[in-house]
This record gives sequence, C-alpha cells and structure tokens, in this order.
Amino acid sequence: MDIAKWGEEPFIEKISSLFPSKKGLVGIGDDCAVIPKEKGRVTLITTDALVEGIHFLKDKTPPEALGYKTVAVNLSDIAAMGGKPLYCFLTFSLPKETEKKWLESYLKGFKEALDTFGVTLLGGDTVGSKTGLFISLTLLGEADKKKIKYRSQAKSGDILVVTGPLGDSAAGFRILTENIEQDFLLAPLVDKHNLPRPHLEEGAFLANLSSVHAMMDLSDGVVQDLKRLAKASGLSAKLDIDKVPISLELTLASISLGWDTPTLALSGGEDYCLMAAIDKEKFSSVSEAFQKKFKRPLTVIGSLSRGKKGEITYRWQGKKVPFEEEGFKHFT
Amino acid sequence: MDIAKWGEEPFIEKISSLFPSKKGLVGIGDDCAVIPKEKGRVTLITTDALVEGIHFLKDKTPPEALGYKTVAVNLSDIAAMGGKPLYCFLTFSLPKETEKKWLESYLKGFKEALDTFGVTLLGGDTVGSKTGLFISLTLLGEADKKKIKYRSQAKSGDILVVTGPLGDSAAGFRILTENIEQDFLLAPLVDKHNLPRPHLEEGAFLANLSSVHAMMDLSDGVVQDLKRLAKASGLSAKLDIDKVPISLELTLASISLGWDTPTLALSGGEDYCLMAAIDKEKFSSVSEAFQKKFKRPLTVIGSLSRGKKGEITYRWQGKKVPFEEEGFKHFT
Repeated sequence: MDIAKWGEEPFIEKISSLFPSKKGLVGIGDDCAVIPKEKGRVTLITTDALVEGIHFLKDKTPPEALGYKTVAVNLSDIAAMGGKPLYCFLTFSLPKETEKKWLESYLKGFKEALDTFGVTLLGGDTVGSKTGLFISLTLLGEADKKKIKYRSQAKSGDILVVTGPLGDSAAGFRILTENIEQDFLLAPLVDKHNLPRPHLEEGAFLANLSSVHAMMDLSDGVVQDLKRLAKASGLSAKLDIDKVPISLELTLASISLGWDTPTLALSGGEDYCLMAAIDKEKFSSVSEAFQKKFKRPLTVIGSLSRGKKGEITYRWQGKKVPFEEEGFKHFT
Repeated sequence: MDIAKWGEEPFIEKISSLFPSKKGLVGIGDDCAVIPKEKGRVTLITTDALVEGIHFLKDKTPPEALGYKTVAVNLSDIAAMGGKPLYCFLTFSLPKETEKKWLESYLKGFKEALDTFGVTLLGGDTVGSKTGLFISLTLLGEADKKKIKYRSQAKSGDILVVTGPLGDSAAGFRILTENIEQDFLLAPLVDKHNLPRPHLEEGAFLANLSSVHAMMDLSDGVVQDLKRLAKASGLSAKLDIDKVPISLELTLASISLGWDTPTLALSGGEDYCLMAAIDKEKFSSVSEAFQKKFKRPLTVIGSLSRGKKGEITYRWQGKKVPFEEEGFKHFT
C-alpha cells in the first residue's frame, strides 16, 4: 500500500500513536507544539514546508511572494495560539540550476516578512536537490500559558466563527494554474494566494478572551480543518454554507468564470485566517468588540454540539444539504 | 548564475549578511543556534535535512537506518555544543508512491533513536512531493551557557583533536553506490554510514573543560569543517594527514579495493564525530582523562596558529604537502 492510498490522516495518527506526548507538553495535533518555560510563559513551535509543484509553481509564483509566504503560513499557526513570533530556522533543498537572482528575490520577500512581524532568522540548512525546490521553516514564538486556545477545548453549544473571507486564495491558485488573464478583479485574488496575511492581531485579541474556547488557523480548507477541531474536541459540527463569508472579488469572479464558489471557499485551502469556537452566551459582546477593533465582522459559520465525533452536517439556509468533502489532500 | 556556480558558502554568507544576529543570541554560523533561557541555561536549536539522491539512496539505505540517521545527524550538532537533546520536529515531503511499509520501518528506526537518546517528538509537517523524498528534522536541546564551545573561540597555539576515526562513513557510502559486495570487513563501514553514533557523551565531557576552547561536529569532511572553524576563530591551521585516525576496517578495505584513504578520511564527510581545539599546555591532562573515560585516545590531527584566516597547510610526517581540497559540496 502506498501513502496515497493510506492517506495523510492515518499516517499522522500512526505517528501520534508511536510518539505520545509527555507530561506538561503539547505535541502533535495542534497548530503549534507548546513547551513550558519560566513565569507562566510557554514556547510555541511550528513548522511548515512548501514544495515545488505542490504548494507553489516556480514559473507562476514570484520568488519575493514565495519568500514572504514561507514566513506568513508559519505565522498563521502562531496566530492560532494567540502567540508572539520570535525566531525562525530556514531549510532549503535547491536543485543546482536554481538561479542566484531567484534566490536573492526570495530572500528579499522573506526578509520583508521577518521585518514586518519582528522575527529573527537564527539558522537552518542548505542542501541540494536532485529534482524540485523544497523549503521548510520552523518558527518559534511565545505566549501566556493560560491564554492559549487549543483545538480540543471547544464546548457543545459553541458558535463557530471565522476572522476573514474564505476561498480567495484557492481562486488565486486556480487563476495561476489555469493561466487566466489577471484583470483588476482577479489580481487581488492572486495576491491573497501569494501574500497571505497572518491574523496575528486577531489571534492575540481572541486569545485574551475566556469566552473563546478553541481556535485554529485555516490552511487545508474549512471542511477538513473543522473536522479536526470537532474531532479534537469530541464534538460534531453544523456548517452553514450560505453563511461562509465570500469576498466581493470572489463572488464576481465566480459569476464571470462559472466557478463553484462553495467548493473553493470550503475546500480550497490556504485561507490562513482563523476559526474559533466561542461561548454562545458571550458571543454578541465578543463580536461587538471584534467589530470595534478590526472594523469588520467576526462571521458566524456554524456551531458545535454533541454527536458523532468530527462529523459535519452541511446546511443551506438552515436546511441539511449534501456536500462533497474534498479538501486539499497532500498525497493524491 | 546558478547556485552550483555561486556556491553554498557564498549563499550562506549572503543569508548571514542579510539576517544579522541580535544581541544575546547566536544565530547562523555554528552547529546550533543559542537562545538564552532562565538560570544560566540556554536552548540549543539545530536543523538538518536528508534528501533522496543526495544524502541517501532509497534502494540502498534501509528505511530503519535512515530513520535512525535523521535523528543522529542532528544529535551530532547538539553534541558539538556539549548539550542535552530534548525535543524534535519532523518534516516529511513524500511522493505519493511511498510505501506504507517503508514509512513504518522508517518510523521504527526513528523511534529507536529517540528512545535511545531521550528525545520527544513534538510535531512536524507531512506534505506531498512531486519527485523525491525529503526529510527535515529540527532538534531542540539545552546546555549551560558558560560551558558551550563555539567554533569561533579557538586560540592560536591550540592543538586540534578528533574524537573518532575518519572516512568510514564515506567508504560505506562508496560501497553502497558502487554496489560492492559487503563482506565482514566492509559491512561495518556501511553501518558507520547508515547508523552514525552521535558523540553526545564525548561532547558533554569536553564541554566541561575550560581548556577546550572550540568544538564542532564533522559532517562535511574535516577539510571543509576545519576551514570553517579556523575562519570563525580568525586563525590558520596545520593538518597532519598522516596523523588522521583511520580505522583498521578502512585501512584494509583501502588496500584491497585500491582506495585513496586520505581523500576519504579528509574530504568524505558524514563522520559525525567531534573536532576540538584544546589549550596546548593542558592537552596531556585532557587526553589522559579522555582515554580513562572512553577507553580510546583523543587523536591529535594538527594545530591552529595566527596566519591567513581559514587557510590550511597540509603536512605529511611534518613536511608540507599539496592536497586537493574537495570536500562534500551540496550543489555540484
């Protein structure tokens, strides 16, 4: 049997079972690992890889954008734990024909992200590659131990929210791969794919509130990520497809290009905004404070309840509907 | 210009200059990054990648050995700083045809190394690959701030030593790539390549001594690594080729197969033992204590002195000789 047939989740479950976490540590299964340090603080660690032909296309993604994105996707994991990013380690596996100019542009975008978010590069590894480019970043941050929101702490009755519109990045990727000409309407979607903004401030804001029970970043599409959150919390979820926030750009692009917006928004992946589970009773005050601080709404997309662990019920205008759950799968 | 022409060292120098380290932190340029933590302790971090076709051959390296080696090569960096390993993060980029059985064997060897050296896996990333296998490990450890030995602290007049024989791993790699039949003499060389032993105890022992000024692990061949140590310390080096320790297995294999032993020993790489610069006056007592503890000698291979930064003079029986400095290069 190969990994395509075995699947990513069973493989990760195998790893989790072989390497159980130790007392006081949070390991595999959340956005970051959590290691205690002095004075009620913890070290957060996350690592994400970007692979040519899978996460990016060398001839379609500008190297500066890719450099920026390497940092941004890892920052998104720190944001999901309400943390502050500090240090990073960069690993490059480079085919020998990689252009110096390309690398210099890559480093320029990488540096811009580091400077913007106050992160220091402390090391890494540079190795060759017989084939494609491979980039891996490990990012360290810190947070207050008491404020961290895990995936596993959602409660039955919680309201599910997201901090930004979904599907823009997936649309941008489609524009790039299908060589669709970028006009003023489509270019912002490509930017969303190339230069995702990590929701660090939103994460820190939500982490401060005890009424926010669970949080994670959306990287593989809300369908797949929600399943993980629900499963980790031992709950089932309702997802209101019609309530998922869609940008004006994506709405218009979908009309003109005949795209299926819900599929892009729910399964496309690489949104890099945050999803949180919030106490139902406290939701209106959280929502008001969020709107006041960020000048945009915290959007409700569903709820969590007791039921089959990790099961999602899809609804459209309150009625149950079928939905093909095809999120981003790495090995197929 | 491509990276093959540009070269690994200029590329790393470019990165170092773009991302200077901050106060109190040690970043790019040593075996591990060093981040201060409470009570005079520091966190050590290192990351090393293993790439199919470059660091290993999937059809030649048993997956269990590769799993073990992934950990061992990173532990070697912790050993070079006299540290204690603690946590790690594993990143996999897997072609979809990767066999479940292969992965399970890999994880078995990986787990054996973690259990042997007391390391906890806390996370990672699993992504696809369009082509070959790519594995990256980030390892965290800790050490006493005062005891850490940097590459840059060697002093003029220091004696250069290594903690084990050189060239065995390079010979093992040659046996594998050239499909040489493994008899009782050659098999141990292949084992040295597949299952390198990180010199953690030796590292901790040497780190405890103030007469040891500088230390690093040997991964790219002593020639290339000594240049780095000498350059970082602002010194030049003498390397006595005839004094480099060669195992009995390698000596006999070289005779029977017609290999050039000095090239394998000096430029082969992947030795994963330690090199240290020791105060000349104190050397005999250090050497005696090492012999007593480890039941084998600490071998002198040269010395450091003022002169052209990073320059190596090669000697044979005390006389200067020419030597082709072709260590392992990643991009050519």
